[in-house]
Parts: sequence; C-alpha cells; structure tokens
Amino acid sequence: MNQRRQITGFSNPTVKFLRSLRDKKHRRREGKFLAEGLRLLTDARDSGRLPEMLIMAEKRDDHPLLAALEADVLANGGDVIETSDDILAKITGKDNPQAVAGVFAEFDTRLETLDRSEAKIWLVAQALRDPGNLGTMLRTGDALGAGGLILIDDCADPFSVEAVRASMGAIFTQQIAQARWEDFMPWLRGGSGQLVAASLRDAQNYRVAPYAAPCFVMVGNESRGLPQEYEDACDLRVTMPMKGRADSLNAAVAAAVLGYEVLASLDS
Amino acid sequence: MNQRRQITGFSNPTVKFLRSLRDKKHRRREGKFLAEGLRLLTDARDSGRLPEMLIMAEKRDDHPLLAALEADVLANGGDVIETSDDILAKITGKDNPQAVAGVFAEFDTRLETLDRSEAKIWLVAQALRDPGNLGTMLRTGDALGAGGLILIDDCADPFSVEAVRASMGAIFTQQIAQARWEDFMPWLRGGSGQLVAASLRDAQNYRVAPYAAPCFVMVGNESRGLPQEYEDACDLRVTMPMKGRADSLNAAVAAAVLGYEVLASLDS
Repeated sequence: MNQRRQITGFSNPTVKFLRSLRDKKHRRREGKFLAEGLRLLTDARDSGRLPEMLIMAEKRDDHPLLAALEADVLANGGDVIETSDDILAKITGKDNPQAVAGVFAEFDTRLETLDRSEAKIWLVAQALRDPGNLGTMLRTGDALGAGGLILIDDCADPFSVEAVRASMGAIFTQQIAQARWEDFMPWLRGGSGQLVAASLRDAQNYRVAPYAAPCFVMVGNESRGLPQEYEDACDLRVTMPMKGRADSLNAAVAAAVLGYEVLASLDS
Repeated sequence: MNQRRQITGFSNPTVKFLRSLRDKKHRRREGKFLAEGLRLLTDARDSGRLPEMLIMAEKRDDHPLLAALEADVLANGGDVIETSDDILAKITGKDNPQAVAGVFAEFDTRLETLDRSEAKIWLVAQALRDPGNLGTMLRTGDALGAGGLILIDDCADPFSVEAVRASMGAIFTQQIAQARWEDFMPWLRGGSGQLVAASLRDAQNYRVAPYAAPCFVMVGNESRGLPQEYEDACDLRVTMPMKGRADSLNAAVAAAVLGYEVLASLDS
C-alpha cells in the first residue's frame, strides 16, 4: 500500500533509519542506500530505478520532474515523506541539502551478473579507498560507454553517499561488481577479455598499445598502486608520460586518460 | 635565530596559530599554509622550498629524510617543534595525522609572475570550487610537464590543506596564478598562446584538433561549466565523446584527458 506522510521530529524512527544509511554497516544490513537531488533521482527513474522511499523538503519549489517522480513512486507502492530542511540536513549530512532524496535497494554486485559482451570497455579498480574516486570512475565509465566498474579486493563502498554523489547518476547506469582477485581472474579467463594495467614497470607507450575488446582497464590503490603479481597477470601493461616529479596520476584520472585512449583505439 | 622546542599544551599560541591555518581567512592574513607528510615536505625541499616551521610528532620513527629536512630547516633559520600525536591531529584536522607537517610562506600568485615560454602546456580552471579537483589538476599538470595552473574567477584556495594534499607535492613544482577573467584575457593576448576549452557547443573532435604551443587548456566550474562568453573567446573548442547519459566529465578528469591529448599532439 502506498503512503504519503509528514515527519516533524528528529527522533522519528524513519529519520533514524535514514540517518543510519550514511553508515556502511547499516547499509549492508538493510540492503539500501541513499541518493540525493532531483537530477540524480530523475537519472535513476530514466534508468528504470525508482526509490522505495522519497523524502522531500516541505518548503520546496514545484517542479514537473519532482511531481512525476512522486507519482511514479506512489504508483510503484513506495513511500513519500515530507519533512523540514533541518531534518533533511541531518539525514544527508549536508548543511544545504538538496530538496529531495531517495532510498534505493542496493543492486546485486556479484560478478556473475555482468555480461561482458554488452560493452567494449570495462573499468576495474583494485583496493580503491576514496569514495570520490570511485564515483568519478563510474561517471567516467558512463561517458566512455563502458559496461561498468569491477571493484577488486577491499574498495570503498560504491553505495556510500560520497560515491553516489560523485558518480553524478552513473551509479544507476553503470553495472557494478565486487570481487576478490582470486575470484575475478577465473571469471575473466572464463571468456574473452584483455586485462590492461596502467603501470610503471615493463610497460608499453599507452598511445600505441594493441587494445582489444572487451578491454578491462585496471587501476590500483591510491597509495600503493597495483600489486606486482596483479600487474604480471595482465595481458598488457601501459604507461602514460610522467614529465614531472610525480610518478603517478590520481587513480580516477589514470583510468580516464587510459580509458579514452582505449575508446579511440577501439573505435578507429 | 633558529629554534628547536617542544609544545605540550593545546592552548599554546603556536598551536592556535597552526590550527588557524586550516581557515582561508587566516591563511590569507598570515600569508602561510600547511603541508603534511614526509613525502610532500621532501618534494618541497627538492624543489627548493623549505618550511619556515617544521612540526614533528614526539613519537616518530627515525628517518634519514626527516633528519635532513630538520637540519635544513634549522640551518635556514626556521623553527622545529616537537609535539604529541593528539596536538598534531588537532593541527591537521586528521584523526591519523602524518608524523610531520610544515608551515610554508604562500607564493606570489600574480599572473605577471608566469613565464609562458617555460612550458608548452598550461592548465586553466574557471570557478573551480572543489579543492580536491584543484589539487588533482596540479598533480596532473606536473605529470604533463605543464608550466602551472591559472585559476580564473572565484576558485577554491590552492593553499587549503585539501588542495595541497591532493596535489601530491605538485603545489611545490607547478606555478600557480589567480586572476579575474578580465585581467587574464589581456595578459593572454599580450603574448603567444592558444586558449582551448572543453566544450559541448560548436566543438571539434578533441582527437584531431590543431593544438599549438603554448596551449592553455581550460575547464569550467563543476556544476555550470564555462560561461558562454568565455567559450566564445577561446581559439579552439573541443569535445570528448560522451556515450552515456551524462553530458560532462569531472572537471579534473576532463582537464587530464584533454591535457594528455594536447601533449601527444605537440610531441608528435
């Protein structure tokens, strides 16, 4: 049964539930995550994802997209909640929250759910710790027409508020899988796929390397890069010019520079 | 006269001064900024920049680079301060602070200090609000062999702790200028220089555009992009493929993808 109601108290159990979704442990237990902003929620709707719960500021400007979203959520059996700016700020953890947020069911992120034939490029991140970098990689993957992002080993949570925000909606358009390295490699080798690492060791110039689809573009942890044995297992190790003092790029930047090179190579 | 001393109290005026450097207003007034971590401080030293004050954890591992840094700071007439992990955490605003931090004099960031003949690529950011993006652009500029980063209009502060951290040392190797658009354009047109914008309007494919050195690669604000009139004033507007739902890349990512294309074009 669909519901539309108002919440006025900070101690309301729904407010407590919503706030708890900022914490990974609670997200995991509930299997839900939070996304903010009309644009993000509209992207989700356009991608066939409706929030189970829609939370709106009482004092908000009318907007046809918001009205459409509300109607769809109610028609789909979801909840619509109106509340104060203060409570919305407490829920999202932002001083100036957007006027709307939604609660979504987390997606199935098993490797087996991916269909590698759906795209020519896939991004892979190993032990990526920064949720902003993770979200940025999702956003870049969307722009590249990649199939999705595969998270190897202990990465930041793709369903964290920060990652969802940085993805700019790509959380709803990119497929996401989470796997250990020892499960990823047998899956990868169980079909076609070229694994390419951005590397400093024994590497080819990234501009002239022989990329092949489906191409899996992998970057490593922000501080330590990829473990040597992971690099050794790649089909191709490529390097970008490093003309200054630094020996590496930001992980999300490296994935983008390499990903756009792969795209140009495969499209030509 | 050089000094080496211990600080044990949270209410010590030096602790208050150091904490105040996390705030832009105080940084501006003092003309100082804070950088953390042995690697960053060693990069600074290698680039000829020594901190005026070095702050070290009492309980730290001996390290030859730290000893060398300390000796140089003292020889240069600077202060060396030992303090507790708790106070260091309070100064840097991090729960697990690095064992060392330094106070540097802010650099002169007037446009007139730049020598455009020093590099083939310069990065330009307009109204960039995220200090992490700003630091990432500095880091990318270092890797590209760019001359520096020019900040147009109201950007995040390059001397904020977040920007310095994300720059991974490039704050000390890249030149930085801050200018209003109406001052930047006369400066740019007062010499040779091609202004290139990542754009969605009336734009060429970024892979085949005729880049020329010195090439000024410009990206706009994270939400609004570049104002139309700024794009119109560019010598070249280029576009990257956007194959998904999104119509833009993260600003630092766009600068990197475009910057690496310019580098490859100018080097070929």
